[in-house]
This record gives sequence, structure tokens and C-alpha cells, in this order.
Amino acid sequence: MKIEELRVDIIELGVLKPEWRPLRRMQEYPDSHRTKFAHRPFEGAGVTGDPTPAYAAILNIQTADGIETPGVLWSSWSKEQLEWDSRTFKVQWDPELVGMNALDREYIWHKMWMARRYFHMPTISPLSLIDELLWDLAGQKSGLPVHKMIGGFRDKVPAYLTETAVSFEDTLASAERAKAQGFLGFKDHAILGVANNIKLAGELRNIVGDDMVLMHDPVQQYTVDEAIKVGRELEKLGFLWMEEPLQESDINGLKRISDALDIAILALESVQGAPYLAVPYLSSGSIDIVRQTALGITGQIKLANLAEMFGANCHGGNPHVVAAIRNDDWWEHPAWQPTSPDRVLTTETSKLIRNTHWVENGYMHVPQTPGLGREIKWDQIKDRTILSI
Amino acid sequence: MKIEELRVDIIELGVLKPEWRPLRRMQEYPDSHRTKFAHRPFEGAGVTGDPTPAYAAILNIQTADGIETPGVLWSSWSKEQLEWDSRTFKVQWDPELVGMNALDREYIWHKMWMARRYFHMPTISPLSLIDELLWDLAGQKSGLPVHKMIGGFRDKVPAYLTETAVSFEDTLASAERAKAQGFLGFKDHAILGVANNIKLAGELRNIVGDDMVLMHDPVQQYTVDEAIKVGRELEKLGFLWMEEPLQESDINGLKRISDALDIAILALESVQGAPYLAVPYLSSGSIDIVRQTALGITGQIKLANLAEMFGANCHGGNPHVVAAIRNDDWWEHPAWQPTSPDRVLTTETSKLIRNTHWVENGYMHVPQTPGLGREIKWDQIKDRTILSI
Repeated sequence: MKIEELRVDIIELGVLKPEWRPLRRMQEYPDSHRTKFAHRPFEGAGVTGDPTPAYAAILNIQTADGIETPGVLWSSWSKEQLEWDSRTFKVQWDPELVGMNALDREYIWHKMWMARRYFHMPTISPLSLIDELLWDLAGQKSGLPVHKMIGGFRDKVPAYLTETAVSFEDTLASAERAKAQGFLGFKDHAILGVANNIKLAGELRNIVGDDMVLMHDPVQQYTVDEAIKVGRELEKLGFLWMEEPLQESDINGLKRISDALDIAILALESVQGAPYLAVPYLSSGSIDIVRQTALGITGQIKLANLAEMFGANCHGGNPHVVAAIRNDDWWEHPAWQPTSPDRVLTTETSKLIRNTHWVENGYMHVPQTPGLGREIKWDQIKDRTILSI
Repeated sequence: MKIEELRVDIIELGVLKPEWRPLRRMQEYPDSHRTKFAHRPFEGAGVTGDPTPAYAAILNIQTADGIETPGVLWSSWSKEQLEWDSRTFKVQWDPELVGMNALDREYIWHKMWMARRYFHMPTISPLSLIDELLWDLAGQKSGLPVHKMIGGFRDKVPAYLTETAVSFEDTLASAERAKAQGFLGFKDHAILGVANNIKLAGELRNIVGDDMVLMHDPVQQYTVDEAIKVGRELEKLGFLWMEEPLQESDINGLKRISDALDIAILALESVQGAPYLAVPYLSSGSIDIVRQTALGITGQIKLANLAEMFGANCHGGNPHVVAAIRNDDWWEHPAWQPTSPDRVLTTETSKLIRNTHWVENGYMHVPQTPGLGREIKWDQIKDRTILSI
């Protein structure tokens, strides 16, 4: 299934009103004799602009078998910038990919993995997209959903609601809503200081009862001593894990926490280099659960398998990967909307190419249609295309 | 010295002709029974476009003392995109920085360090810029160059020429040119396979003689065994260091190489999280020299000091930092031009705000004028400004 063309279609998203409000602002961490930095919800109006033409660049990988697959490369308020980005992308990547067998994902993955270094790529997201699209092509070719190509483990995964760092009361209210909505678990990102975080954990357990699973994610807020202090209380309250207690370059600190506590420690969301970076963390026993951040579906399978060999779980990632491994027990469903400054644009593109996994009655269900199982508005993409590169 | 305003000026760079040619393309690594991925010089025409209006966003930090300092935030082919990026930047960062004392660099640095995580920043370069500009403000206030504010160690640093992965013959020719130009050292990035890299190392030593310092940077091309094999030969030839032999998440592999070899191993260019990430590498004895990639001048001082405590050098970074530490013996001067797809734009902005360190007779000389010592075309920036945000 030879790759015949990488075509980038510049499409019009219509005239949209730019608007953005940051999710967070910084503050000093409460309840500590140290000066440390935490965050709190952003207060203020955010920023808006006059209605402006908006654009996106859609990568379409075309094969000699006539099978093709599209994915959103970028969105922008500028067609000039998208055109230049698309043309430079193609001059770099056409020689690497056109003519290759789209089914040779492992070869292409390794080439892309090293290319990210040699090409000094500021972000790997275009490479993750290419890998996902190759899986989609293979799924279309075989008539199988991606998770069945990997090798299915289950078709639904227990889901928990994850709430951002809102106030004490709002976190409790969110947990109640999560339970009412049928979620089987709830994760807070409370950033209220050691004493209040512990108090909140107790109230969360009271509100949701003993059957609901609880997790705590302080996002690097603790010292080693504080993490151990909080962890001891979480253990009494039957929490399942504590996530990213320290900044993640601190392998020694994570190991001290893991050695001291029984509760599982989850980390590696913010350190670059997945799948490979997890080895020293797992081999030193510094963490119990690895965050899934690896490049593409191919990389995510590698990282999940690595964790499995260490008897560890690997949490997060593409729904097809999660459905095809044993060692991730939970699907994370966010309680908040996307927060990047281009969300007006990404909201539009997600209507054109829509993922179809869904959360219902406490479970994430993975699509059973071929490939990634996305819903693609082919006609709209075609009608909106103003330039093909 | 209160920060009164973060002003972003959108400026016209004029009508420029977009052009870009990638530096590299991928290939399989020669001279190995494994399939591994290396790169070679890109062949082909690259890409050009019609002359197009170009823009940049200049961040200007203004203080209540009347001292101000500008720096290039971004450049683009689109003023619409720059305007939106600038407005979202300001709505996020004004509350964090305006009203603070510009001299409280350590406080601001720690706030920015954690904010990069909480704001999910895709790149830290705006934060590095802010830190550098705070040093410039302090230097202007005090009348001292930044390296003297840090605490001077020297005013010039021995310089070597670093050549990219060109052919065997071109690498030799480049080393000859480097010697003729007075450089005191030369670093190759040969990617010719183990046997040919060793052969090249011998010929390099023959050509430059015994007095010139040589370094070898295979950029993650070797297995552990290959790196040791090459390193043994480099030791015989009196090379100073071998750089980034493996992919840098592989702490165990780097340690095996460092344990086996006498020649210094330099690494940590490509792993995110500096200054903190270097601790496990240094404490485990996996590397001898740390690449300087830390956030801002403030972060670079931290990383250099950390390395010094371990008896290690810390190579690279801002000229003012290099001039103000003992533990970096060399200044790296590239033999090739900037290679990013926006280089047409960055070439223009570098004419408006120009760094003034210079390389002459084998030494990098650091400026002795206040602050960063940059040459700033204030009039041109003002004349070209079409929008201030």
C-alpha cells in the first residue's frame, strides 16, 4: 500500500470571533512556610477580537490502493502562514514518506523518531498525527478498528471525571456531579495547600462513598516530605493514586516518595522523550504508573508494553491503545473545555474530523468501525478547500 | 524598578521572498548490520514563494525608572496571527509580571518555571526571553554588562568551529579552514558509520596537527558498543570529548559508556527540563559534561553551578554566562547558517536587535557595554511599528 502523496489542503473555517480566556493564573502556594508557586483559576475577562477569517491545514495521506486519510495539521488566523508551513513541511517530509509502504509503520516510526532530533522539530505533534493516520490506513485496508489490529483487550474502559484546580467547594460539587453522572471515579487537582488538600480528600471520600475510586493530582506542588504526609492520609482514605507530586526530572525525589508510601505514584506527563524516558524511572522503582505521552499509537504501544514488563500500569493515550492493553484501568474524562489560545479554531476543525469514542454510564466505549473510526465530513472539507499543496 | 508595561509592537519587516531549504534528510546509517537512522545533507531545490509582507512581534519591557528593553518574541508572514498571539500572551502574562520589581529575577524565574507547566506552554522561549530582558534591565540600571553582574571570570573564551554532517572530504576541508581562520578547536558531526568515522578522526588529527583541540559529535548514532569502540580510537587521537553518543533518555547506556571510556562524554542537549534534569545524570556519573539548555540566563547560571559542584563542565549557552563561569572551556561557533523555515524572517529581525559578542583570532569576546550589550535600531523599530498591544 504505497504512499502516493502527502497533500495538504488549506481550508476556510469561516469568519470566526477570536476569543480566549486563560484557564489559570499563578499564585504563591498557600499553607507553606516556603515560597512556592501554584496556580488558581484565572479571573478576568480574557481577550476577544473582531470576527476574522480562519483557516486550517488538513494533511491527507493518499495511497496507491485508493485509500486515503485526513488529519488536522494546524489551524491559524492566517492562510499565508499556513501555506508557508505546509510547503516547508512537504519539502522536508515528502522525500521521507512518499513511495514508502504505508503498512511499514515500525520502520516509519523509527525514522520519524530520529528525524524529530535531526530536523530540530519544535513539536512532535505532526509526527504523532502521521503515525495515527498510518494506523487508520491499515485499519481501512483490513476493515478492522485500530484496537483490533493492535489486538483487542476490551471494548469499554471504566471512566473517571477529572476536575481542574477549582475551589474547595467547587471540587466537592464536581465530585457529586461525577457520581450522579455515573462516573466510576473522580480525580481532583486541588492546589489548596497540604492541610486543605488533606481536608478536601476526606470530604471527597465522605461525599462519594466508599465505592467510588478517587485520585489526587497535585501537579508538582509538594516537597518530598509534603507528598509523603499527604500520601499517608490518602492511603487511609483509600485513594488509588497520587499523580505528579514533584517536578518530574527529580527521579531521586520520586523514589523517596515511592519508597515511603504504599499508595501508587503516577508520573511522567511533563517530561519529553516518551516512550524511552520511562526506563530509568521504572527500573529504579521511582514510580508505579507511567503517564502515556509517547509519539503516536506505535510509540504508545511500546510504552504500555514496557510498563507491563515492569508490572506497572500506563495511564492515558489514544482510546484504541487503551482498549488494546491490560495495564490501564481508567479512562480520564475532563470536566473542563480545551484551553489553548486557538480553541475557537480547534472547535471548528473537530466538527470536520470527529473522534467517535464516547463516555456513557461510567465507561469509555471505543469505536468498532474500521481504522480510527472517525466521522469525516469529506464534502465540507472539499468545499472549503482554497488551496492544495 | 517596577515593571510598568509589557508592550508588544507588531512591526513590518518589509516585503520578503520566502525561501527555505532543509539542512538534512534522513537515511539509513551506513556501516552497520542494524537498521538505524542517520541523516545526510538535503539535496534538492528547497521551496520559495512570491514576495510577501513579513512581520515580527517585539516585546518591550518598560520600567517605572524609564528604562526599557526590547526582544523579538515571534516573526510571521501574518500580522493577524501575530496580533492574536500577542494579545493572548499579554492577557496571560500581564497579571504575572506587571507591577513586579524587575530586579527580582529569582522570584520571577521560579514563577515562570512553574507557569511553563501550569499554562501548558508549548515552548519556553518567550520565558527565556523575559529572563534575558530582566538581566538587560538590571545591567542598564547598574551600568554593568550582564557577565559582570553575574560575576566575571574572563572576557574572552577559546572558540572552536563546529561543522554539520557534511561528507568525509568536506569535513576535512572545513577543519583546514577552521585552523587557517585561527580557531583553536574543531568539532565534526560525522555520520559516516563507525569505520569511516574512526578513519575521519585520524585524518582530522593529521590535518590539524597535535595542538588543535578536536571533538566528535555523532548525535545519537551509536549503540553502547559502537560508542565505546569509537571512543577508544578518539582517546588514542587525543580528542577532547564525544558528544551525545546515544539518545539521551538512556541514562544507563550513557553510564556504561562513561564507565568504559576515559574520554569525556558530553550530553543533555535534547532532553527537556533544564536546569533540573541534569541531577540524575551527574549523580549517577553517566556524563562528564552537561549541555547548557536551561531556561534563561538565570537558569543557565544554576545549571553551570550544579555541574561545577560535580566537578563537571557545562557547555554552551548565553555568552554572558559562559564569560562568568569557570567550567566551560570552549565557545562553539557554527560553520553553517540558521536552518529553521523562518530564517528569512529571523535574518531581518537580527538586524534590528543585534548581539555583539564576536569571534576573532580563536576567541569569543563578550561585550563590555551595559546589560546584554546589544545594538538596537530603536528608530527603525519605531518607524516599522504598525500596532502596539
